[in-house]
Amino acid sequence: MSPKITLELLRQLRQAMKSSKYVSEPIQAYIIPSGDAHQSEYIAPCDCRREFISGFNGSAGTAIVTEQHAAMWTDGRYFLQASQQMDSNWTLMKMGLKETLTQEDWLISVLPENSRVGVDPWIIAADQWKSMAKALSGAGHSLVAVQENLIDAIWVDRPARPSTQLIALGLKYTGLTWQEKVVALRSKMSERKISWFVVTALDEIAWLFNLRGSDIEYNPVFFAYAIVGMRTIRLFIDEKRMVNADVREHLQLDTPSSSELSIQLAPYESVHSELCAICAGLGPREKVWISDKASCALTEAIPKVHRSLIPYTPLCLSKAVKNPTEIQGMKMAHIKDAVALCELFAWLEKEIPKGTVTEISAADKAEEFRSQQLDFVGLSFPTISSVGPNGAIIHYRPLPETNRTLTLKEIYLIDSGAQYRDGTTDVTRTVHFGTPSAYEKECFTYVLKGHIAVSAAIFPNGTKGHLLDSFARSALWDCGLDYLHGTGHGVGCFLNVHEGPCGISYKTFADEPLESGMILSDEPGYYEDGSFGIRIENVVLVVPAKPKYNYRNRGSLTFEPVTLVPIQVKMINTEMLTQKERDWLNEYHRQCRDIVGAELERQGRKEALDWLIRETQPITN
Amino acid sequence: MSPKITLELLRQLRQAMKSSKYVSEPIQAYIIPSGDAHQSEYIAPCDCRREFISGFNGSAGTAIVTEQHAAMWTDGRYFLQASQQMDSNWTLMKMGLKETLTQEDWLISVLPENSRVGVDPWIIAADQWKSMAKALSGAGHSLVAVQENLIDAIWVDRPARPSTQLIALGLKYTGLTWQEKVVALRSKMSERKISWFVVTALDEIAWLFNLRGSDIEYNPVFFAYAIVGMRTIRLFIDEKRMVNADVREHLQLDTPSSSELSIQLAPYESVHSELCAICAGLGPREKVWISDKASCALTEAIPKVHRSLIPYTPLCLSKAVKNPTEIQGMKMAHIKDAVALCELFAWLEKEIPKGTVTEISAADKAEEFRSQQLDFVGLSFPTISSVGPNGAIIHYRPLPETNRTLTLKEIYLIDSGAQYRDGTTDVTRTVHFGTPSAYEKECFTYVLKGHIAVSAAIFPNGTKGHLLDSFARSALWDCGLDYLHGTGHGVGCFLNVHEGPCGISYKTFADEPLESGMILSDEPGYYEDGSFGIRIENVVLVVPAKPKYNYRNRGSLTFEPVTLVPIQVKMINTEMLTQKERDWLNEYHRQCRDIVGAELERQGRKEALDWLIRETQPITN
Repeated sequence: MSPKITLELLRQLRQAMKSSKYVSEPIQAYIIPSGDAHQSEYIAPCDCRREFISGFNGSAGTAIVTEQHAAMWTDGRYFLQASQQMDSNWTLMKMGLKETLTQEDWLISVLPENSRVGVDPWIIAADQWKSMAKALSGAGHSLVAVQENLIDAIWVDRPARPSTQLIALGLKYTGLTWQEKVVALRSKMSERKISWFVVTALDEIAWLFNLRGSDIEYNPVFFAYAIVGMRTIRLFIDEKRMVNADVREHLQLDTPSSSELSIQLAPYESVHSELCAICAGLGPREKVWISDKASCALTEAIPKVHRSLIPYTPLCLSKAVKNPTEIQGMKMAHIKDAVALCELFAWLEKEIPKGTVTEISAADKAEEFRSQQLDFVGLSFPTISSVGPNGAIIHYRPLPETNRTLTLKEIYLIDSGAQYRDGTTDVTRTVHFGTPSAYEKECFTYVLKGHIAVSAAIFPNGTKGHLLDSFARSALWDCGLDYLHGTGHGVGCFLNVHEGPCGISYKTFADEPLESGMILSDEPGYYEDGSFGIRIENVVLVVPAKPKYNYRNRGSLTFEPVTLVPIQVKMINTEMLTQKERDWLNEYHRQCRDIVGAELERQGRKEALDWLIRETQPITN
Repeated sequence: MSPKITLELLRQLRQAMKSSKYVSEPIQAYIIPSGDAHQSEYIAPCDCRREFISGFNGSAGTAIVTEQHAAMWTDGRYFLQASQQMDSNWTLMKMGLKETLTQEDWLISVLPENSRVGVDPWIIAADQWKSMAKALSGAGHSLVAVQENLIDAIWVDRPARPSTQLIALGLKYTGLTWQEKVVALRSKMSERKISWFVVTALDEIAWLFNLRGSDIEYNPVFFAYAIVGMRTIRLFIDEKRMVNADVREHLQLDTPSSSELSIQLAPYESVHSELCAICAGLGPREKVWISDKASCALTEAIPKVHRSLIPYTPLCLSKAVKNPTEIQGMKMAHIKDAVALCELFAWLEKEIPKGTVTEISAADKAEEFRSQQLDFVGLSFPTISSVGPNGAIIHYRPLPETNRTLTLKEIYLIDSGAQYRDGTTDVTRTVHFGTPSAYEKECFTYVLKGHIAVSAAIFPNGTKGHLLDSFARSALWDCGLDYLHGTGHGVGCFLNVHEGPCGISYKTFADEPLESGMILSDEPGYYEDGSFGIRIENVVLVVPAKPKYNYRNRGSLTFEPVTLVPIQVKMINTEMLTQKERDWLNEYHRQCRDIVGAELERQGRKEALDWLIRETQPITN
C-alpha cells in the first residue's frame, strides 16, 4: 500500500480557501468530515471527500487543512491504515490517546488570531457545528459555512451522485402502505402539535415510501429528502428516476387519490429553498420537527422559534418496531440465509483439507450460496472472513495482501449478511475445522455463555438495551476477560444492517427502551491479538415473555433467535455450561434442524442437510 | 395530621413580591426550591423554607407562588403526605403523571405577559437556573435573582443557622493531614492549569479540613465555604466556632507553618464578595473550578471566561476512594455496628413474643445498642423500622400514627446506620420471627441472589457502577419481579451516608468508574404493596480481584463486604441457591462469626454471641 500523493491537491484546496469565487473573505482552515448530507454510516463514492483529499479511506476520520498543516483525526482501529495511506503532508492525530489534541484545541493552537474556519454546512451535523463554533469563538476565531464544497471544487473526476433504479415494495413485504405510514406519522405530529417534519435520514425515507434503491453499497437506500406536512407530502429526488411506471404507480403520481396523500416531487437540490419557503409561511406557534443529527444547513433553515429537534424521529421509532409482515419476512430471509451458510460450512469441511480455500474465496463462496436464494439483492455489509490472528481484528476485511488460507489448525470467524427483498441478515459463526485447543474452547464457551445470557434474558417492559450489556460479559469478566465493542445493534428489514434507536451497549444511555417487535443483534466476542478472534452473533427478535409473576402489570420481554445457524459444538467445553445453558443450546439446535432442515429438504440440498443434522445433535454433557 | 394554615403567610409573601424593599420591580411569581445554599441532601431547620410556607415537609418538592396560585411539585413518594400537610390554598402538582405540567409550562400557562419570576440565586443550582431562564424567556417572561430570600423576610421565628461545635479529626481517623490534602488538590489544579477552586459542598469542606460538625442532623458537617488557590486557603465560616483551642491548633491558626498552608478565615457571608474580588484580579487565561451543582449566585460570580464547571470536583473524587486508615476505620465501625445489631436481634427474639415491641421501640433499642459502642456520634439517617405492609413503603419512617407491633407473623425490615468517629454505617436486614411463607422465602431468595450477584461480581478496572445494576435484578426479572430504586450509593467515612461520584443504578450514566478503595451499598429489594417489603443491604468495599486471566493488563475488581451482620437463613429457600451462592453465604457467615464474634466476646455480650453463632451455621442444602 503506497500513500496517496497529496501535495498538489492540498495546494489547490488552499487556493480555493482564499478564492473569492467560494468565500467572501479567505478562510484559514477547512474542515472535511467523513459523512454525507444525510449523516449516513456508509457513503457513496461521490461523498468520499476526506478520502479524496488525504488517501485515507477508513470508515471514520476528520481532516482539517490549514495554510500550513493538514491533520487527520481517526481512532485506534485505523492508526496503522491511515499512516500507510497518507503521505508526509499529513499529520495523524490519534484519537483516544491522552496527548492528542482535540480538533478544537489543535485549531486554536495553530491558527493566527481572528481566523475563519470553514466547513460545508451540509455535511456537519447541527450539534457538531454548535460545539465547534463555541470553542472557536471562545478563542477569538469564527466558524464559517462555505456553501460550495471546496473538495468538490477541486475534484476533477468526482463521480456523479448515484441515481439507481428504485424498487417499489408491495404490501407482502411491508405490511403497511406508504399512505398508512404517512397517516400514522401525521397522527404523531398532531399529538405533539407539529406542523411539518423534515425527513433527512435515507433509511427513514426508504421505509416511509416503501421504496428501495442501491445508491449506497450494502444499504438499499436512495438519495432524497422528504418534508411531510399535515396536508402535503414533498419528495425531493432526482426526477429522472421517477420515470419507471412501477414507481409512478406505487407513489400514485398519475392517479392521485386524496390531495392530502398526493406526493409533490421536487428536485433533490431544492430541499433547502423549499424548507425556507415553508418556514417563511409558518404561524407564530407552528413547529417543525427535524432530527438532532440532521445537517447544520437544513437545521439552520428552520428559524429557532419553529425548530423542534428530536433525538429519534417518529419514523425511526416506528421503523424499529417491525410489524407482523416484516417479522415474517425477516424470519424467511434468515432461513434462506441459514441454508446458504449450511451449504458454505458443508463445502468448507470438504474443501479446506485441500488447502485451496482462502479468506477471500470463502467469502466469495458465501456470497455465491446466498445469491442462489430467492429475492437475494446483495450483501448487507462487507464480509468479515478471517483466519487465526486476522480474527482478532474486529473490523477485518480480507485483502489480497492479508489473505490467509483456511486450515485445520486455526480458528475461522465469518461475520456476514445479505439483503433479501424480505429482510436483512447479519450472522457471525466461529468454527474450527480441526481440533481446537482447550484454551480456545474455554474462551469460546465464555462467549457462548454471554450470548445465551442475553438471548435468554427476561426483563421488564421499558428496559433499555444498555442494561443488558453486562449479562453478555459476566462469564468473561469472571475470568478477567472482556471485549471492547458493544453487544448488539438494531437491524433494519431490507434496510440498513445498523439502525437505531435500540442497541445493547455499555457506551450509551440514549438508546430507546426495547419493545416487542424490535430486532437486534446479540454478538459478544473475545479477541486475542495476534492469535484468534471469537464472536457468536445471532439476530434476535424482542418478544413478550410470560414469567411466573407480573410485577405492577408491567409485563416482561425476552428474545427469540431469528438467525438459525448451528453453533459449533466442537468449540464448546460443555462441562462449563449450566443445565439451563445446555437446554437453551439443544432447543436452539432443534429449531435450526426443524426449520432450516425443512427448507434444505425443500431445496434438495442434501449435503448441507446432512451437515445440519450432524451439527445439531443434542449435547448431554 | 392537620394541614398548615397558610393564607396569611401567602398574603405576606405576595406583598414582599411587590415590595420595593426586596425587588426593584414587582415579581409575578416566586420559586421556593427545597435545598440549601450548598445543595445538601439533608438540610437544617433554618433552610426548610418550602416547609415553612406550605406545611409540606417531604424531602423533595418545589413550591411556586404567583399572585393567584400556590403550587407544589413533588413525586409519587409524597402525594399523600403533601395533600395532608397542605391547606386548600395549595395545588399539588403530581410529578411523573402524564397530565402534570412542568414548572416551566405551568408558569407560562398562568402568568400574564412579560412576567418576572423571582428566585433566590443561592438555593437554585446554576444549571436549573439556566434551563428555567431559557424556558421563561422563550415565552416572553424573565427569571430574576432576588437577593434577599423572601421567605426569610416573612419568617418571624426562623431558627438561627446552626453553629455547632467542631471536632478536629486526627491522623488516626483520617490517614492524611489536611495539609497533605491541600497539596494533593493543588497538584490536580496545576495539572489542569486551574488557579482557584471554590468548594461549596459541605462534606467536601469537612473532608478537606478533617473537621466535623453537627449543623445538619445525621450529616456530620458544618456550614462553610472554602476557596483554595495555589498560594492561599480561605475558609468562610462563623468565626465564633473558631475559638476552640483544639480546632485552632488543628488548623494551625496561631502557628502558621508555610504561608501557602496557612488558612485565612473570613465570615461565612463574605464568600461572594471575596470570590468577586478574586475574579477581578485574574489574568486573561486563568480558570476557576466550581461544581456544576453549585448555586447560581456563586457560579455567576465567576465570569464565564474564567469559569470551569466540573461534574465531580477533585475533592469529591478523592474522598470517594478511601485510604487505608479510612478503610480500617470503616471496618471497625461496621464491626461495632454489627455488635449492636446482634444485640438488637437477640433482644427482639426474646421480647417480641411478649407483644410489647413496636417499630418505634425497636428503632430506639437499635439506637441504644449503637450508642454503647466506642466513638458513637449519632445515627446516619432516620431509622426505617417497618413491619408487614409498612415494609413496602421504601422511605418509611415510623410515626406514632403508623406504628405497628412486631409479631411472629409478619416480616420485619430494619434499615439503619450510625455515625462513629471512625466510620459511617448503613445496613438493612429483613427477618421473620415466626415462620415465613413459601412465597416470602421465594421473594427473599431472589433478592439474596441479586445481592450476591453484585457482591461477588468480578469486573474490569474502569467499569462504572451502573453496569452492575442489572446483576442485582436478574433473578427477580426471571420471575417477572423488580424493584423501583437503585441498587447502591457511595458511603462517606464519618460523613454523609449518601455520597457521589459512584453508585449502582440504572438511572444514571454520569457515575464515575469504580476504583479500589471506594465504598458503596449493595441493596436490592422487593416490595409488595400492602403486604411486605424485603431489602438486603451491605456496605461493600471495592477491592482488586485476581481472576485466572488479565485481559490487556486492565486488572479486575470485586467487592468485599464491610457489613458483617448475619442474613437470616430462615428466610432463604436454600434449594433455589446455586452452589456458588451457598459458598458465598457460608463464607460470609464465617466472617461474621469470626470477626464480630471475637468483638462480642471481648465486650462480654454473651447472649448476642450465642445468637450470632446460631445464625451463622453453614447451610448445606
